[in-house]
Amino acid sequence: MLKEVLLGVLTGAVALTIGILLGHFAIDKGSSVPDWVRDASRDVDESIIEKFLAELDTNQLRENLRELTKVPHMATTPGDEATVDFMLKRWQDPNTGLDSAWRENYKVYLSFPNKTSPNKVSVVDPANTVQFTAREREKVYKPDQEDPEVVQPYAAYSPAGNVKGKLVYANQGKMSDYELLNRTLDLTGTIAITRYGGEGRSKKFRSLTRSSWYTSFIALNAINAAKFGIVGVLVYTEPYDMNDGLVSESETYPHSWYLPPSGVERGSYNIDFGDLLTPYLAAKDDTYRIPKEDITGIPPIPAQPIGFEDAERLICELDGDDAPNEWQGSLNCTYKLGGPGFKSTSTFNNSNVHLDIYNTERLEYSANVMGIIRGSVEPDRYVIYGNHRDSWVHGAIDPSSGTAVMLEITRVLGKMVKEGKWRPRRSIIFGSWGAEEFGLIGSAEYTEEYFSKLSERTVAYINVDISVFANATLRASASPAAQSVIFTASKQVKAPGTTTTVYENWKQYSNRTSPNYGIIPNVGFLTGAGSDYAAFMHYLGITSMDISYFYDRSKTRARIYPAYHTAYDTFDYASTYIDPGFTSHQAVARTAGNVLLRLADSLLLPFNCSDYAESLDHLTYENNCQKIIFFFFMKQLIEPLENIKEPLKVRQMNDQLMLLDRAFLDPLAFPEQYGFRHVIWASRSSSVPTFPGLADAVEKAESTGLKEDWDQAHKHISIVTQAIAGAAHTLDDVI
Amino acid sequence: MLKEVLLGVLTGAVALTIGILLGHFAIDKGSSVPDWVRDASRDVDESIIEKFLAELDTNQLRENLRELTKVPHMATTPGDEATVDFMLKRWQDPNTGLDSAWRENYKVYLSFPNKTSPNKVSVVDPANTVQFTAREREKVYKPDQEDPEVVQPYAAYSPAGNVKGKLVYANQGKMSDYELLNRTLDLTGTIAITRYGGEGRSKKFRSLTRSSWYTSFIALNAINAAKFGIVGVLVYTEPYDMNDGLVSESETYPHSWYLPPSGVERGSYNIDFGDLLTPYLAAKDDTYRIPKEDITGIPPIPAQPIGFEDAERLICELDGDDAPNEWQGSLNCTYKLGGPGFKSTSTFNNSNVHLDIYNTERLEYSANVMGIIRGSVEPDRYVIYGNHRDSWVHGAIDPSSGTAVMLEITRVLGKMVKEGKWRPRRSIIFGSWGAEEFGLIGSAEYTEEYFSKLSERTVAYINVDISVFANATLRASASPAAQSVIFTASKQVKAPGTTTTVYENWKQYSNRTSPNYGIIPNVGFLTGAGSDYAAFMHYLGITSMDISYFYDRSKTRARIYPAYHTAYDTFDYASTYIDPGFTSHQAVARTAGNVLLRLADSLLLPFNCSDYAESLDHLTYENNCQKIIFFFFMKQLIEPLENIKEPLKVRQMNDQLMLLDRAFLDPLAFPEQYGFRHVIWASRSSSVPTFPGLADAVEKAESTGLKEDWDQAHKHISIVTQAIAGAAHTLDDVI
Repeated sequence: MLKEVLLGVLTGAVALTIGILLGHFAIDKGSSVPDWVRDASRDVDESIIEKFLAELDTNQLRENLRELTKVPHMATTPGDEATVDFMLKRWQDPNTGLDSAWRENYKVYLSFPNKTSPNKVSVVDPANTVQFTAREREKVYKPDQEDPEVVQPYAAYSPAGNVKGKLVYANQGKMSDYELLNRTLDLTGTIAITRYGGEGRSKKFRSLTRSSWYTSFIALNAINAAKFGIVGVLVYTEPYDMNDGLVSESETYPHSWYLPPSGVERGSYNIDFGDLLTPYLAAKDDTYRIPKEDITGIPPIPAQPIGFEDAERLICELDGDDAPNEWQGSLNCTYKLGGPGFKSTSTFNNSNVHLDIYNTERLEYSANVMGIIRGSVEPDRYVIYGNHRDSWVHGAIDPSSGTAVMLEITRVLGKMVKEGKWRPRRSIIFGSWGAEEFGLIGSAEYTEEYFSKLSERTVAYINVDISVFANATLRASASPAAQSVIFTASKQVKAPGTTTTVYENWKQYSNRTSPNYGIIPNVGFLTGAGSDYAAFMHYLGITSMDISYFYDRSKTRARIYPAYHTAYDTFDYASTYIDPGFTSHQAVARTAGNVLLRLADSLLLPFNCSDYAESLDHLTYENNCQKIIFFFFMKQLIEPLENIKEPLKVRQMNDQLMLLDRAFLDPLAFPEQYGFRHVIWASRSSSVPTFPGLADAVEKAESTGLKEDWDQAHKHISIVTQAIAGAAHTLDDVI
Repeated sequence: MLKEVLLGVLTGAVALTIGILLGHFAIDKGSSVPDWVRDASRDVDESIIEKFLAELDTNQLRENLRELTKVPHMATTPGDEATVDFMLKRWQDPNTGLDSAWRENYKVYLSFPNKTSPNKVSVVDPANTVQFTAREREKVYKPDQEDPEVVQPYAAYSPAGNVKGKLVYANQGKMSDYELLNRTLDLTGTIAITRYGGEGRSKKFRSLTRSSWYTSFIALNAINAAKFGIVGVLVYTEPYDMNDGLVSESETYPHSWYLPPSGVERGSYNIDFGDLLTPYLAAKDDTYRIPKEDITGIPPIPAQPIGFEDAERLICELDGDDAPNEWQGSLNCTYKLGGPGFKSTSTFNNSNVHLDIYNTERLEYSANVMGIIRGSVEPDRYVIYGNHRDSWVHGAIDPSSGTAVMLEITRVLGKMVKEGKWRPRRSIIFGSWGAEEFGLIGSAEYTEEYFSKLSERTVAYINVDISVFANATLRASASPAAQSVIFTASKQVKAPGTTTTVYENWKQYSNRTSPNYGIIPNVGFLTGAGSDYAAFMHYLGITSMDISYFYDRSKTRARIYPAYHTAYDTFDYASTYIDPGFTSHQAVARTAGNVLLRLADSLLLPFNCSDYAESLDHLTYENNCQKIIFFFFMKQLIEPLENIKEPLKVRQMNDQLMLLDRAFLDPLAFPEQYGFRHVIWASRSSSVPTFPGLADAVEKAESTGLKEDWDQAHKHISIVTQAIAGAAHTLDDVI
């Protein structure tokens, strides 16, 4: 009933419909007024947008990608330095560069394998004779895999160590997985083999799927394991989850987009993002660093990823009971739990699995490359567009597909600026972040260093990391305030391989029914820390979005494109299987670039705050507690039309819109979660998608029934209520 | 050497000298430009300021004070309700009121004595026969003291309890005082009698002296005492500290301004400010409240204040060694430490001191009264002017002298607005805060409720609490950014009883030598939580100031006006001994009102960021660590003159100035101190006035020499460095 009332009020409310207003505020442009009066009222020029869209070129995109992926460019390696130089050369080009571009170094804590002592995974019999050794490198199919700079597969931040024990199979290494094993087995001293996690429960909601960096679950795996006395963890890529069950070499890359049997998914096994030694402080040379022993959220025991070819050798020899149905996969046997250890009929009978890990941590300088186009009217308002530059190996898709798009956008915009044809109303900042794969480090350090300035001035952050997962449809996750501008932009771009727009095509693949608009494309939530938007959205409260082209979920179960984080994510892979004509790259460049131009040039910011309310409301029936706070959202930003001719009035409304997401920040709401301060979108453990603090507290209280836990839920209702009321005050009449 | 270099650079730097710029940015006011173009460039109108200053009337000030002090108006009592009605009536007056005014209630946790079971302090012999009882009420000299609503003297938030024990004298109850006693005495089970603290070490710096609420030291007293097994604490007002040694009735009020022997200083014995049950949350009806057991920073043992007449009976009967010289006072005996207990020759021999405390805590609705004048050009920028309304008894000086000034300012401004003669460029918000005496509660809850909005929009906070301590000189404490506007304003006001200006008079009483300006009046720091500026300055990072008229420190040792927090702080006292002609009230109204008008009307905000650097630099030789960070301050806000004609350029510069203090906030710098986030001015325990986190950490490290403590000092250098760099980025070219 309450819901119906709310929906009625919302639908009937006079919202700030930017589109309608846009036609009304142009001031009289008589010749007698000063130039700046004309400038101050300048709005988006649709002809500029058309020109921009037309200039974005598939050949340029292809050549960008080819150049970026010539060599492996893991953070702080010579290959990474080469991409720094390349970015700077492009952004400092006198004909197509930006107003200025420079590098900014941070001294960050990274973890690497040892080139001279590679990590080893083996099976050894009781006399310590080696019976089997897992591959140290992925199999070579193309010259790219032969590059000596291809880093050995490893789990960054896994401690070094030499451990052995009987093997058990622990599914995804969730707490519940280990608890199940622990019911029948003594896990003390064992080694667990686990598979990389799928999407899990987040599927139910419009939440982000696995992305460039999102390894909390894996770090948790090893942390969970250690609680049961397990001494080492192996992680492999299950072909059921990634390859739609295909396992043979003839069916995988270079014959298809699927992962070859020897392919190993690298990853950073840390829960918190940003440099681990300098939480909340930019990692400069002299910055205070916490003792290494005080780092939390990294594996306490050695961990190592392996390919499914090696995993099969280990899993299919296991003794013990059959694993539950949902733990089974596509390897050629019935998965068993382990005796612990191997079955008596196996040549591995009585043998141990041996992990010999030589990872070392060290401080290295990682660079962000920054570039700007100065705004003409409001230089002190920023639209930030970014992507990371570092990869695990060649990183053609992750992240270079995004960097190729960014470079093509800057080429076209830079040219318009250098030719004097255009300059944005607001300043545009481009960020090519370093060391994202190790935990969003470059972007996090940047937000820490420029915290005040960015908080005060940034209108929006656009993240395009992996720009093309596949060729089917646009995928966007965003603060609901940005939904409308993404829709506007995507309606102006043709969807590759179709006769329709990106918007209409997207709506076919993924949609929801909105009480305000009917059927619309499904914009996901930015609840996690999958890429560099995390620090902007969660730490700074800046309206953010993440845009890419994605695959058809009905055609594949792959939790991400299968070459992800392996030595097969190369230019050949990308240009053969992901986007041969580079038309999806172009569609993303056009959509994200169009969003960028609208955010930079619009007189009134194209944010729709009623979409925020509607988007949350859509979910409120999930949780009764959330209904209460909706009354606060009835207030809408309404300003008489005749008042918004004036630059300071426009600025006032824009500030209200800019600061809407900022109002949801509460630095004390999640003291235990690094960098998460946005009370609506912070990372959560419960299955409810929004209001994570409240949802987690209610879930806990419901399970324990303890008064003190209900008190905590009450506390989080108060925190959320105050934050939403604060946002409503921000939107209310300014005095 | 470093210092010399820095000073040289600073002196030579081209600072943003507002005065010079002011003459340059008026735009051409041709008739062809729209009205709003003219409005947008409107600046302070000096003729309006002159008119305003002339209208402020001593008779009105006197009548305001008379009306406000008719009855005692402790927070949430009927007398307090009467002042709410009075404020609303005045601010809603059709001829002299504000644009609108309203009340806002918070449900806050207060502590009161029990009317039917008054607190008792007595001396009882071993047979429990009462030998002496301290007064329950102050002696009646005028009808005011007879009012049944005069609250019994008590220590708010002292727990109820019935304790007795041998008496010891513990000076000011500092940790070092108890340690000294503990060297020779077993304090377990004793009662300590202590004197209210003086200014202590803060005298050395430009720090705030004791103000309306500043009782941390007293709460600490009881917390310290409990650590030594002491079971109860008495606190009295030492005539040496308050009465320049005078103790006889014939020399004290009503014969002079000094405190009568029976006068008792009430106070709130809590360390943290804001409602104690709802930290960081506005105390609304349904807000989550922490369990009472979780409150920290209040006395764990009963405490009670008494007058010096009663203190003399107790102290002068004590046995034991002579107290140290600096513990002696003006009571008619040599102060001894206690046996513990009384001397054998005393009638109190073998007797105990008995505290029977019946304080109760309860939730009560406390009101802020709010009023606004809407800004014409930038309504979304606020100048806030406030004072608390609640007193302990009649509160003529504390706080009604300030409220009288606020009401006279609003009368004159309201009249100009109602007559259509003036409307400020920015919005002005007036706040009449509730429950300040219990710990700045009304203002703290207000900042919690409107956190985002106030953070984003507030240009400055002006606090005028006790407006007149005495008639000698202006006293101002402020963020250094506000120094120049206070100087400008005070130069336009005549100092009462002199032939010179408030500025020149002030400079005679209190000055320092500035490297930039030569000899200038000494503007104090806002380091403490003495009044309602605390939440604005320390929690929100809003440029704040506290303004009053003060006494000649060379003529008296009184740590505050002697009737402070007693039943003698009445209209009679104020109009007889503090400011008979109300000319000092008028001088404060003129100075603070002038500051208010300049902040509300100036095209460019009259904040000087180079004063911030200079003011900090003045102190850097106190601490080597601080020098390092000064390099960051070399950047100055410089904008070519021709650019600042345009409204958005002006706004941009103003935002840089407005947000300067905000950039110094770090919500994680002082996790253990409620509401303190400003890394320069937060409350501190070390003797260094600025950079409290760093100073405290260095002091601790120097005393322990431990590596982990030096690591903490390093951490605080990083925090401060990042904050100052953040402020510099804010002042730097915007892109």
